[in-house]
Amino acid sequence: MDLIIKNGTVVNAGETVKADVGIAGGKIVAIGMSLEAEGATVVDAADKLVLPGAIDVHTHLAMPFGGTTSADSYLAGTRAAACGGVTTVFDYPMQRKGMTIKEVIDSKKAICEQEACVDYAYHCIITDLNDGAILEEMGSAVESGITSFKCFFVYKKEGMMVDDGTFVQLLLKAKEVGAMINLHAENPDLIDYNTERFLAEGKTSAWYHYLSRPEYVEAEADKRAVHWAKHLNAPLYLVHMADEEGLEAAIEAKKENPDIFIETCPQYLEFTCDVYKREDGRNFVCSPPMKGQESQDALWKAIKNGDIDVVATDHCPFQSFEKDWGKDDFTKIPNGCAGVENLYPYMLSAANEGKISFNQAVELCSTNPARIFGCADKGSIAVGKDADIVIYDPQANFTISVDNMHSDYDHTIWEGIQLKGYPEQTYSRGRLVYDHGDFVGEPGWGNFVKREKRT
Amino acid sequence: MDLIIKNGTVVNAGETVKADVGIAGGKIVAIGMSLEAEGATVVDAADKLVLPGAIDVHTHLAMPFGGTTSADSYLAGTRAAACGGVTTVFDYPMQRKGMTIKEVIDSKKAICEQEACVDYAYHCIITDLNDGAILEEMGSAVESGITSFKCFFVYKKEGMMVDDGTFVQLLLKAKEVGAMINLHAENPDLIDYNTERFLAEGKTSAWYHYLSRPEYVEAEADKRAVHWAKHLNAPLYLVHMADEEGLEAAIEAKKENPDIFIETCPQYLEFTCDVYKREDGRNFVCSPPMKGQESQDALWKAIKNGDIDVVATDHCPFQSFEKDWGKDDFTKIPNGCAGVENLYPYMLSAANEGKISFNQAVELCSTNPARIFGCADKGSIAVGKDADIVIYDPQANFTISVDNMHSDYDHTIWEGIQLKGYPEQTYSRGRLVYDHGDFVGEPGWGNFVKREKRT
Amino acid sequence: MDLIIKNGTVVNAGETVKADVGIAGGKIVAIGMSLEAEGATVVDAADKLVLPGAIDVHTHLAMPFGGTTSADSYLAGTRAAACGGVTTVFDYPMQRKGMTIKEVIDSKKAICEQEACVDYAYHCIITDLNDGAILEEMGSAVESGITSFKCFFVYKKEGMMVDDGTFVQLLLKAKEVGAMINLHAENPDLIDYNTERFLAEGKTSAWYHYLSRPEYVEAEADKRAVHWAKHLNAPLYLVHMADEEGLEAAIEAKKENPDIFIETCPQYLEFTCDVYKREDGRNFVCSPPMKGQESQDALWKAIKNGDIDVVATDHCPFQSFEKDWGKDDFTKIPNGCAGVENLYPYMLSAANEGKISFNQAVELCSTNPARIFGCADKGSIAVGKDADIVIYDPQANFTISVDNMHSDYDHTIWEGIQLKGYPEQTYSRGRLVYDHGDFVGEPGWGNFVKREKRT
Amino acid sequence: MDLIIKNGTVVNAGETVKADVGIAGGKIVAIGMSLEAEGATVVDAADKLVLPGAIDVHTHLAMPFGGTTSADSYLAGTRAAACGGVTTVFDYPMQRKGMTIKEVIDSKKAICEQEACVDYAYHCIITDLNDGAILEEMGSAVESGITSFKCFFVYKKEGMMVDDGTFVQLLLKAKEVGAMINLHAENPDLIDYNTERFLAEGKTSAWYHYLSRPEYVEAEADKRAVHWAKHLNAPLYLVHMADEEGLEAAIEAKKENPDIFIETCPQYLEFTCDVYKREDGRNFVCSPPMKGQESQDALWKAIKNGDIDVVATDHCPFQSFEKDWGKDDFTKIPNGCAGVENLYPYMLSAANEGKISFNQAVELCSTNPARIFGCADKGSIAVGKDADIVIYDPQANFTISVDNMHSDYDHTIWEGIQLKGYPEQTYSRGRLVYDHGDFVGEPGWGNFVKREKRT
Repeated sequence: MDLIIKNGTVVNAGETVKADVGIAGGKIVAIGMSLEAEGATVVDAADKLVLPGAIDVHTHLAMPFGGTTSADSYLAGTRAAACGGVTTVFDYPMQRKGMTIKEVIDSKKAICEQEACVDYAYHCIITDLNDGAILEEMGSAVESGITSFKCFFVYKKEGMMVDDGTFVQLLLKAKEVGAMINLHAENPDLIDYNTERFLAEGKTSAWYHYLSRPEYVEAEADKRAVHWAKHLNAPLYLVHMADEEGLEAAIEAKKENPDIFIETCPQYLEFTCDVYKREDGRNFVCSPPMKGQESQDALWKAIKNGDIDVVATDHCPFQSFEKDWGKDDFTKIPNGCAGVENLYPYMLSAANEGKISFNQAVELCSTNPARIFGCADKGSIAVGKDADIVIYDPQANFTISVDNMHSDYDHTIWEGIQLKGYPEQTYSRGRLVYDHGDFVGEPGWGNFVKREKRT
Repeated sequence: MDLIIKNGTVVNAGETVKADVGIAGGKIVAIGMSLEAEGATVVDAADKLVLPGAIDVHTHLAMPFGGTTSADSYLAGTRAAACGGVTTVFDYPMQRKGMTIKEVIDSKKAICEQEACVDYAYHCIITDLNDGAILEEMGSAVESGITSFKCFFVYKKEGMMVDDGTFVQLLLKAKEVGAMINLHAENPDLIDYNTERFLAEGKTSAWYHYLSRPEYVEAEADKRAVHWAKHLNAPLYLVHMADEEGLEAAIEAKKENPDIFIETCPQYLEFTCDVYKREDGRNFVCSPPMKGQESQDALWKAIKNGDIDVVATDHCPFQSFEKDWGKDDFTKIPNGCAGVENLYPYMLSAANEGKISFNQAVELCSTNPARIFGCADKGSIAVGKDADIVIYDPQANFTISVDNMHSDYDHTIWEGIQLKGYPEQTYSRGRLVYDHGDFVGEPGWGNFVKREKRT
Repeated sequence: MDLIIKNGTVVNAGETVKADVGIAGGKIVAIGMSLEAEGATVVDAADKLVLPGAIDVHTHLAMPFGGTTSADSYLAGTRAAACGGVTTVFDYPMQRKGMTIKEVIDSKKAICEQEACVDYAYHCIITDLNDGAILEEMGSAVESGITSFKCFFVYKKEGMMVDDGTFVQLLLKAKEVGAMINLHAENPDLIDYNTERFLAEGKTSAWYHYLSRPEYVEAEADKRAVHWAKHLNAPLYLVHMADEEGLEAAIEAKKENPDIFIETCPQYLEFTCDVYKREDGRNFVCSPPMKGQESQDALWKAIKNGDIDVVATDHCPFQSFEKDWGKDDFTKIPNGCAGVENLYPYMLSAANEGKISFNQAVELCSTNPARIFGCADKGSIAVGKDADIVIYDPQANFTISVDNMHSDYDHTIWEGIQLKGYPEQTYSRGRLVYDHGDFVGEPGWGNFVKREKRT
Repeated sequence: MDLIIKNGTVVNAGETVKADVGIAGGKIVAIGMSLEAEGATVVDAADKLVLPGAIDVHTHLAMPFGGTTSADSYLAGTRAAACGGVTTVFDYPMQRKGMTIKEVIDSKKAICEQEACVDYAYHCIITDLNDGAILEEMGSAVESGITSFKCFFVYKKEGMMVDDGTFVQLLLKAKEVGAMINLHAENPDLIDYNTERFLAEGKTSAWYHYLSRPEYVEAEADKRAVHWAKHLNAPLYLVHMADEEGLEAAIEAKKENPDIFIETCPQYLEFTCDVYKREDGRNFVCSPPMKGQESQDALWKAIKNGDIDVVATDHCPFQSFEKDWGKDDFTKIPNGCAGVENLYPYMLSAANEGKISFNQAVELCSTNPARIFGCADKGSIAVGKDADIVIYDPQANFTISVDNMHSDYDHTIWEGIQLKGYPEQTYSRGRLVYDHGDFVGEPGWGNFVKREKRT
């Protein structure tokens, strides 16, 4: 063994035990009492939690969007990930008319090989079937480890939306080839109608971003999506769910089709639509927007009841000067906020405060994402798994600030939020990449995660 | 009094009483025991039921559709109506891009003034907002007595579908001006996807008409429609509902928004999708198609529980030679079946057999349609109402055949169906128009029904 | 015709028409335009509503309870009824161990023949099956016009409760012989447990009356009752429902068994449990107690949606000195409040203010009670029905006070409540019994209402 | 390390890994790749599953019931347990009026110390509060490791039932002291009423056992129980749920109160009420009885969805001659069937056939029981846990017969049932107690499991 993490409390989704963890060749090779090995580095984790690294299955790095590019490069984003205990990030490269899946992925792989500080995987966004060629390519994409595809029930004018017929074809093909379909569900017609109306009426503040896509506008698309998935008995992963009515429909549909999965994000758990009334409301603009208190309560209740499967970030930060473009017109605000470095600390803090258990935090941020998206070597502290490990100090106090984050953005919606407990170290396949506040990894360390097809 | 119907049992939605009915000037002027008047014609209705005439709020007369025109002209359709106890028919003229509501209606009024044998009203089908001009015209249309507008969540390729944004604008405008929005709800993308697939696979029989638009394809559109109506608190009338899941969603939504109304048709109550497996399955082709037994059971249960508001026919017959066009390709079958002459006898027979009460049959076919669509002078046997009256013999036996119908079509899906009880006479505003099997009215007798706006 | 009510607006459950009403021999004999008859008394009802008299199906007159007798004798109670537009009252005589149904009823009939100012009927409370003899007697009771029986899921210690086995036998027998079972549903064990605990803790104010039987304590019994009725498909009438959860269960069960009926009372529609915090909280003590705002909102919503069938009063007033017995111990307060004179004016005022329609008020207070409980000659203004008629002035303003009531009690929970509109005259079988504020009837005028069995 | 189980596939609720398991002093001390230790016994588990021992939380050993005593002594029952992979059994000693909890438990402990072949724990059945003394004793019982108490909503005539008031006091006290309340829910009044009726009608076969307590009779009690638990927010564990309607209510209530838990039994998953029509139907008589196919389907669906927490046996066998007492009178059949040796093989076989996953089988039979009932050292293969281990051969075929069982009974309802896969060895705290078909343990080896209070 190269490395032994001793005396810690090992927390998995299913169980918490006091045990040492032994690592060799980047893998976990033993869990036991009083592990010893000559020459091994020994890390004392007494009074600490030993957790599987988080998997943020929803990030947009160097993403061209809203007339600019999201503020975190692959390097900055994965560096921030490491410092937030995230040892695998999923990026969302987007296909455009005429592109094959392979072209979309390959264009990103080259960059990641250079820049990625932690392991990475891709969901491929599909916007056009290329007359069916995309459907035909899906099987080989799955063989190559790209096992999930996303589409939009929104951004109609922008040419990114798929209609119900296309969506259903993707669902059926995914079912056939062992893939997963991710969906961003909001209703484009209502958003466009509301937006036009508000602009015509001179209602241009960030508050109207929310009012143009409130609860029931998201809910319709959620309900439609789970309707198809339920009746076709096909796999569906709803990203960033934020409203109660859609959530309830999805929970109900899971009873009939257990292959329906629900993701929410930390921002929906922490903030409500009231932030859009603030002076700096534009900084909180993302889509879907934060919703009312009832929806937030419903999200927490669903988390407690095990009805939400994953918490991920939709990390997509923009600089202040970009957000300012929309000062007088909410439609000009680039949509997106930071989160990759906040996800795991936030959810673990919630556990530390007793809202959920630590096991649940691990399940939502690591075990379930690994299971749902086929990361066979990730998701738990178990013999044979990658040694993606976070040592967490439950006694630490931490106040989030743009100054102690490790991204390239210049502000954060999380500024000033206080957390109870904080990660102390992050190991990526046995290598220390984050240590007591500092990034100690290296660009290019991260590997592509070839995922297993669904069975 | 000109006319006294004596000794009958007067059945209204709310009550059944033994009483005479006195008529003068086309109006009901008295209900009482032993009514007498010098010079009045006296009709003895002993052992008979005296019912308000039915209002068939869903017919397509002389309708250009499916490459031809529906088989019943305004004359034939209203003649058949009279002979089936229907004293008011609603037709569905269709707007096309560029046409005003007034143009649509006026083009039909001229014909009806010549041909209509019973009173008539119009729902105007909207397919295009003409850049908002239609919305602006809706208020004046309501003032002129056109208080309901229909749109389609289907027929996308045919250019007749409205998207959600258009639909919502129609709902909101209807709410504002006191109108009603009627909707044909099926999902076009799924129908088109299924249809293409079946044709490519050589599956062309009438059975694939059903399979291209089965329960869940209708249900999605139903659920989406009531979602908007519920959240916008706007009036919505769902035409020809035929599936259980959508029905349940609509019933649930009515609890929050009592201005949601549900119509079904006799064909969905009598036939299931199994008819499409028959040799002559094409004759039963209509949209939405008949569904499975569970849906039919759900419809009857909803009728008994008072959750369905209206039964109307979607009367739209085609000749055999036209139906035959689709012998080898279900997409070539003109969609639609006969019904206007069968509606009231069918529902009254169900009452006579004890499935529902006679009061319910009257409510579903006359009282509710009058109330929902603003026919202030119709819908019941009450002082001050139009003398639209059916004398019904509960002892009669009747077997439906194309030979004893009064339309122009050459076959009927109702052939051979046996009914218990049958109308004996129909009065339209006090004038006898149907008498013991014979049409005795005259073209042009029917008046336009100027309806009241919703309040 | 003896009497013609001219120019009024006749309001029935199903319809509102402008018409004259002609009366002869205590019956309505004609409804028409411009009715005339030599020698007939003519009452001008221009600008007035002409309504069927209300039927208060829930009163306790001269009822021995709580160590005393309810304050209104049959004379006082039916006098008050007449002055509140109630033309039929149902009383609840109680059987005790060993008594036959006939004995219970006969003991009351003698008094009513002397005292009743309006028509009357009886539900018989069953507390003991007398080893099955009661079940055997039920059929003949129904033949004699006693078609409804009540039992309690409460008052266990008092020996009045029936257990589930007895209840089920009553349900099944009622179904067999065409009777109805009424039920007072609260859970006795929880009430007793809570009460003991509160008394032991010195918590003795009226507020603890409420806390000893809050929402969920009623809800359990409601849910249990509808469970049995649903699965046995037997008729059940839930009296004085006051809580949301039980109400929802009953509404849900009605879908499966339309012979489940729901009654609520005006006090639950007007007051919440907050009244028990008042100085005079004891005056509002009745069982079940008023509940929280959510339950009241649910009751109103159910009324609007047609899910509640009947509003009746549970009229059971006590004098102030009797209520005072419980000043320092809520268990010593006689349970019950006044209402018979307030029912119809209260519901009609709600209609006048637009909360419901006048048709609904009539349906809830007259038409439905008549239909559910087999009063064939009551419940509407229709030819052949008893001339039980209220002339109502929608322009009147009225403030309720013990001083303008016509009972014998010395205070009322309705003191100071302002109503919009008020009854002007009441006719009982064509005889004027209330006229512009004064009782003008006579004791002994009221007849026993022999009811029809359910079919 | 004393013992190393090498090369197996370790299956826990949360995860499956290939790893060796090292045991020392009866505990699991290491899980790793290629574990080695001088002097340790090495067992090769290649191609085998290594599972945590099952915990059967529902057995009745040497139970006086139905006029006799259940056929398995503590020795025979725990011997059979060992041979079925069950390493902990929970027995249900019953308190009677006047007895303290301590007396009840102590009377059984003496026997178990002599006889138990595997570890054991007790739920204490409460039938009488002894004027509150039981409530006062519950806290100290919990301290002594007795953390669960059962009561009956049935057996009213037998004096074993608690009423709602008693039940609620138990719930509230359990919540206070960190205990759990288990409940057998059926409605006694209906059972008694139905039974009397059937006997009077000469309907005495086993089929009438079912008809006297069909689905809705169980459902009522289930619904009532979860009503109280939900509103009091108190812990409740429903034993042997068998009907769909009650199950749905419980699942719904869990959303509001996650401390509601649901147990079902293998017999409800395998058999339907149709067995009672068989010649030997009496052998299947247990309470609650097996239900219809819809209920069985609902149970499996709930298991797949994670809505059922535990599968346990209600093991309570009787000899054939005892079952025969009820040949001509179903009320004379002792209620109960065998199961402790079949539980784990049956559920694992279901996993092996793909109905559920092996992880789920482990969760239902071991991990959840340990967690819910506070067996801190049981429930998974994890460092620090007791070495209660089953080595399972997924390739084995096994046909259950009374001949290859290890109990004292002379017949079994499981006769002839074929299983795919079967346990090969069972270890109790590191000691081999079952080996390839033979019991190799010893009476008295089993320890009392002192359980942790709920937090």
